[in-house]
Amino acid sequence: MKAYVTVMLKTTVLDPQGKTIQGALKKMGYKGVDAVRQGKFFELALDGGLDKIAAKAEVERIAREVLTNPVIEEFSYRLED
Amino acid sequence: MKAYVTVMLKTTVLDPQGKTIQGALKKMGYKGVDAVRQGKFFELALDGGLDKIAAKAEVERIAREVLTNPVIEEFSYRLED
Repeated sequence: MKAYVTVMLKTTVLDPQGKTIQGALKKMGYKGVDAVRQGKFFELALDGGLDKIAAKAEVERIAREVLTNPVIEEFSYRLED
Repeated sequence: MKAYVTVMLKTTVLDPQGKTIQGALKKMGYKGVDAVRQGKFFELALDGGLDKIAAKAEVERIAREVLTNPVIEEFSYRLED
């Protein structure tokens, strides 16, 4: 089973990296992009021994306790067989 | 419309950052994670004036030409209204 975790800055937190990318795109002539936000993406390959419920709990714990800084970031995830 | 672009190292390319995270998780006692790969995630807010086909073309161009290093990375994306 695989887990895909996305970690983004909270929408209330300024994202200078995203702003820079947006500015660069504009200068380079790409049209139609009003805003950019950058985040991190993690692909976790899970032990086949875990059932769906255990996998969900473990991934949530890892995302919350290790992959995310809860002060400024939030995460979402999905599981796939 | 929003576009979500995920950029990952190609599977043939070693991902030391992911390896480090996996090692850390193991040492910290988290069970059931066989491998970790880390990538980047971009959320693009698109101009409302673009139709779906134009948006798709523009996002693909941006992902290919700016957000991804084609030598070592590959991207995937999805559009959402």
